[in-house]
Parts: sequence; C-alpha cells; structure tokens
Amino acid sequence: MQTFDFTEHPHTRQNILTGDWVLVSPHRTKRPWQGKVETLPADDRPAYDPGCYLCAGNKRADGSINPQYTDSFVFTNDYSALLADTPVGELNKGGLLQARSESGICRVISFSPDHSLTLPQLTVPAITKVVELWTEEFKQLSANPAIKYIQIFENKGEIMGCSNPHPHGQIWSGGSLPLEIVKETARQKAYFEEHGRSLLSDYVQLELAEKERIVVENEHFVALVPFWAVWPYETMIVSKRHVTTLLEFTAAERTALADILKRLTAKYDNLFEISFPYSAGIHQAPVNDGDHKEWHWHMHFYPPLLRSATVKKFMVGYEMLANPQRDVTPEWAADRLRSLSEVHYKEQKK
Amino acid sequence: MQTFDFTEHPHTRQNILTGDWVLVSPHRTKRPWQGKVETLPADDRPAYDPGCYLCAGNKRADGSINPQYTDSFVFTNDYSALLADTPVGELNKGGLLQARSESGICRVISFSPDHSLTLPQLTVPAITKVVELWTEEFKQLSANPAIKYIQIFENKGEIMGCSNPHPHGQIWSGGSLPLEIVKETARQKAYFEEHGRSLLSDYVQLELAEKERIVVENEHFVALVPFWAVWPYETMIVSKRHVTTLLEFTAAERTALADILKRLTAKYDNLFEISFPYSAGIHQAPVNDGDHKEWHWHMHFYPPLLRSATVKKFMVGYEMLANPQRDVTPEWAADRLRSLSEVHYKEQKK
Ligand SMILES: O=P(O)(O)O[C@H]1O[C@H](CO)[C@@H](O)[C@H](O)[C@H]1O
Ligand SMILES: O=P(O)(O)O[C@H]1O[C@H](CO)[C@@H](O)[C@H](O)[C@H]1O
Repeated sequence: MQTFDFTEHPHTRQNILTGDWVLVSPHRTKRPWQGKVETLPADDRPAYDPGCYLCAGNKRADGSINPQYTDSFVFTNDYSALLADTPVGELNKGGLLQARSESGICRVISFSPDHSLTLPQLTVPAITKVVELWTEEFKQLSANPAIKYIQIFENKGEIMGCSNPHPHGQIWSGGSLPLEIVKETARQKAYFEEHGRSLLSDYVQLELAEKERIVVENEHFVALVPFWAVWPYETMIVSKRHVTTLLEFTAAERTALADILKRLTAKYDNLFEISFPYSAGIHQAPVNDGDHKEWHWHMHFYPPLLRSATVKKFMVGYEMLANPQRDVTPEWAADRLRSLSEVHYKEQKK
Repeated sequence: MQTFDFTEHPHTRQNILTGDWVLVSPHRTKRPWQGKVETLPADDRPAYDPGCYLCAGNKRADGSINPQYTDSFVFTNDYSALLADTPVGELNKGGLLQARSESGICRVISFSPDHSLTLPQLTVPAITKVVELWTEEFKQLSANPAIKYIQIFENKGEIMGCSNPHPHGQIWSGGSLPLEIVKETARQKAYFEEHGRSLLSDYVQLELAEKERIVVENEHFVALVPFWAVWPYETMIVSKRHVTTLLEFTAAERTALADILKRLTAKYDNLFEISFPYSAGIHQAPVNDGDHKEWHWHMHFYPPLLRSATVKKFMVGYEMLANPQRDVTPEWAADRLRSLSEVHYKEQKK
C-alpha cells in the first residue's frame, strides 16, 4: 500500500484557533472548470470622484460634508447594522425561539483621500496613520462599557460585496461576543491555562522553524498561510510578541505592522496582476469583559480567488451543509505567494 | 423609551440546531445598493446538449458512456474530493499541527435526462424517483462500514459554483462527521436526553401553532423559514414524524417529500421569475456510529439572493470574521414566499 502523502492525498487539518477541521483535497485541482467566470471591475479610477461618499469635501447620505482630510478619516456608518440606542428586549419560548436585542456602533474608515489607491499603493507612513486611527478608535470604543467586542475589517473588491472602490475599512462593535471570537477565546484560554504561553506564540515559533508556510516576515510580525487555511490563498498576520490588543503595540510595532501589510497586499495584487479581492480583519481580545490575557493579536485575510483573476473558490453545498473544503495545499499556496515580488505590479510597470 | 420590536430593532437569534447566533438588522434594507450586480445565466436550454456529461448517451471524463436513462441516474464523481483508497496517515506536532487522512465516496445524481428542466419543473412522480434514488444510495453507502456520514446536496445556479445547468445533485460521504453534523448532533442529543422528544418535533409543533414562518405544508412535511435563518430566503423542510434517516420514510412520505420539494422550489423560482439559485441538502443521522435516535431528518435550503435576481447577500467581512448577519426578518421573508403561487412561472405563461 502507498504511504500517506499530505501533498497528494485527501485529509483534514485542525484549525487550532477554533477547533474546527478543514477538508483538503490536493488532487482536485485537476478538475476542469466550466462554471462561473467573474467579470473584472474597472481599475482606472480618478484620484477624486465627485460621486463618492468617501472623497474629501463630498456629501454623505446623512447630509453632512466630508472634511478636506489629508490622511485617513473616520465617521459613523450611515447604514449601521448595529445602533447605539436599541431598546432592550428578550424573547424565549421554551428554548426553541430565543432572541435578544443587540446594541453597538459601526464606523467607516477611509484609508486615504486618494480615490484611486489601495492599501499596497500607500506609503508605509500613510498605512501607519491607518494603524494609528484603528488604535485610536479601538481606545474610544472600548471606553464605552456597553461595548464588548470591536471588529475592525476591510471588504475589498466588488466580489466581496464592497460597494465603493475608495480604499476603506469598517469597524463594527457590539455588546456581545461574536461567534468566531467565542470560539477563538475558548481555545486560546485552554491553551494558555495549560502552557502559560499564548497558543499563537508557540504556533508562530513552530512555523518560523518549519518555514514552509511563511509568506513574509519583519522584526515584529509574520505573515503566513495557516496550516488549516480554508480559502486558497488565506493568510494570517501574527505579532511575534504576545499582545492582547492594538493598544499594547509600540510605535515601532505600528510601523512594522504597516510594513507587513504593504508587503503582503502587494504580493496579493501581484499574484494575478489585479487589485486582489479579500475580506481581512483583526482579531484581538474582547473589552469590558474581564481578563483576557490568553488572547494573542492577529489579522486574518480571506481572499476568494482560486485559479485566476476570474475564477473563485465557491464555498457552497458541501461547505455550507457539512464542512469547509479546499483544493490546493496551504504549503503550495504559501510557496506561490512567497515567490512573488513585494513591489506592486503597477510600480514595476512605471 | 421605545419598546423593543423584533420587526424593527437589531437583535440576535439562536440557531437551536447549532447553538450559534445570527445578527438580524431589519432596518438595514434601507441601505441603497451600489455594489456588484450579478449577470443572469442563459435560461433557454435544449432538452439534450451533446456537450453535457450528464445527458443520456454522452461521454464522461473517465471515458465511459452514460446509459440511455429515462428517470434519474447516478455515478461516482470523476473529480471526487474524497477517494475510497486514501492511505491512512496522521500528523500531530504538539497539538499545533494536526492532520488526518480522510477517505470517502463522492457520487453525482442526474435528476432527469432532460437537460432543460429543474426540480420544480419535474412531475411529482419524477421527483419521487429522485427521492427513491437518494434512499437507495444512502442504503448502499451506509453498508460500507468505513462511511460515517452521507451528505446529499444540490448546488443550483452558476452563482452557487454549479458548473453544469443539467438538473443534478451530489452525495459526498466520508469517514468522519463534518462540522455542521457534529454541532447538530450535540444539540439534538442534549434536547432528546432532557425531553425524550426530538428537538425538531417540538420546534415544528410550535411553528405550526405560530404559523408566521410557515411557507408550505402537506400531510407529512412542513417547509418554513427558520426563526434563526441566516440567508435572506433560507428555508428548511422538516418531516412531521420524527425519523432519523431517509431509510425510515414510507412510500407515502417519499411522495409527500417530492410534493413539498416541487411546491417550495416553484415558489423560489416565482420570487424573481428566474431559475432561483441555492445550495440545498439533507441533514440526517450519521451511520455506522452507534445509536443516533436524537436525530430528526431535515433539509436546508441556502439561497444567496437578497434584493433581486441580480443582487445577492454577501457573507463577507463581519460575517466571516465575527458573526453571520441578515438584513430582513425571517417573518418578512416567509410572508413573501408564502404569498407566491405554487405554479411555476413558466407553466403560468404557457
Ligand atoms: O463538485 P463541483 O460541482 O464541481 O463543485 C462545486 O461544489 C463543491 C461542493 O459543494 C464545491 O466544493 C466547489 O467549490 C463547487 O464549485
Ligand atoms: O457595509 P457594506 O460595505 O455596505 O456591506 C458589506 O459588508 C457588510 C459587513 O461585512 C456585509 O454585511 C454586507 O453584506 C456587505 O455587502
């Protein structure tokens, strides 16, 4: 009988942050693709768009005028999914129908006044200003005792439901712990209690020794394809130091985060020479919720593309009803990303 | 202060089958949509397509020729994600890198030799034959002691990653319990042990009394929008009788299942007068895994569309990183589906 080979045979891998398993089917890339081909959104935007609600000086849905900002800019979402003044209420019919009111605050952050750019095209100092604004927002939102979790994220690209190509992200904060945070808290807590070290400290050390899943690294951060990645080119940025939230980063770490964000996203854009779509977001400790020293700051990137700029991975039938599944190995994806230039293709062409 | 109103204020609801919560933001439909608009796939197919690997008499990827079948037809997937002969292997590095080999069998089921049709356009006797084939496949696969779970599903529509419009579904079966099944087993088991009745028996009884989330019903089944639905028009078909798998259905129940499948999917197509995309699948008890009398057979429908035939709900940033979120209430969606005709719009136009 053949011996088992992870690069070739179907297997499952455990996500140590959630406890969930992913099905890996490496041989499946041989499948020809006759399905949906995405259309590419236009990618030649002006630096200023008079119809964009994020450009400086323009009018927003609530009637207010954006300031003539020069770096990044933040405001409360005009169509927030969570609202600060939700009346309190609860429903429970025999444990079968259970509901609770939910309050929160949703913010929008423009990364730059320049409508034509994206994260990898900004300078490291400009991205550092975005990191500083995230930190400031996190601080202010956590001063509100009703807020228990602050989700900072970016949806990039039409294919990710992003309705405005102006470089921007969002913050949704609410009064209860979201599902993914509940799972990651439980696993990190159990590990911390057993080992006295954070789960991701030990994981990062192992990955730095093994090297094969590392994409890019600097003094304070590492970007890697997690051993349990679900999306074809999924990555995670982890701080080398065990910090629980953005608030603990030093100035040098904030700059290093900006640096690795620029280098990772440039590689992403270079993969298919398009503005690479993804949802990305920071996971960190809950706030106003007691001690969470088990938490280790990290940032996930979930990009949907699989084969090319126009063929994505569909997380459908089996994935929705049963279990996530991927077609290439994380090691193969990491190798591909690692081999790409860190100079953005648009820069290279200049 | 205002009193809390579920039709208007943000809240979370619990999925009793998984224990997870969904964030409901009813007010959010006011948000204008400037994002991605899907293209509609062509919907005027011939009854026979010489290039289709599912049509009768055609050649498949492995070189074999499909028989001249007249009802439904089943074969092993030429690009299976799970293979029967995977060598056994395991990896565990300090609990940080954990992987296991996985074996299984993937099957494809053509619902009809007619390339131009979809489920709601088949007759009840023809759909009954599909139900019978599911039952037969379930029986055969569960006779293999290496198989622990059998996932029967359908990806319908380009937008759901379906690469061939010929009416068909799939069966993926494997040697371990998928994530969703692990969650649903735990919750159903706890309820059954406490109450001596299945969780869904009690839930269905409550829904039949409340009526507001019921979409369509017959003697043996009910189709409803679950109280905790995540997708805008998500539904679930539940058997009124507590049965654990397809194998326990009587002939009358198999026909009734075909009847409710036809009526529900006709309503779906009538909603936007298109062939309505979804992923749907049957959840039932694991096999070769001891006693699972807690399990109550049901079938989920996860359709992606939100506003129209071309604007879907994006499960992205916040949903991927934090928690599922929906924009309309399940009651509103149920009301809309309930009000639609059960006669397929293409039939109405004849
Ligand atoms: O097997 P198919 O139809 O080629 O593939 C489709 O369904 C599978 C099971 O849900 C998914 O893993 C694929 O991403 C999807 O494209
Ligand atoms: O808030 P936006 O950008 O309008 O909306 C987008 O991001 C949200 C948060 O991930 C999602 O709930 C929406 O489905 C998506 O279209």
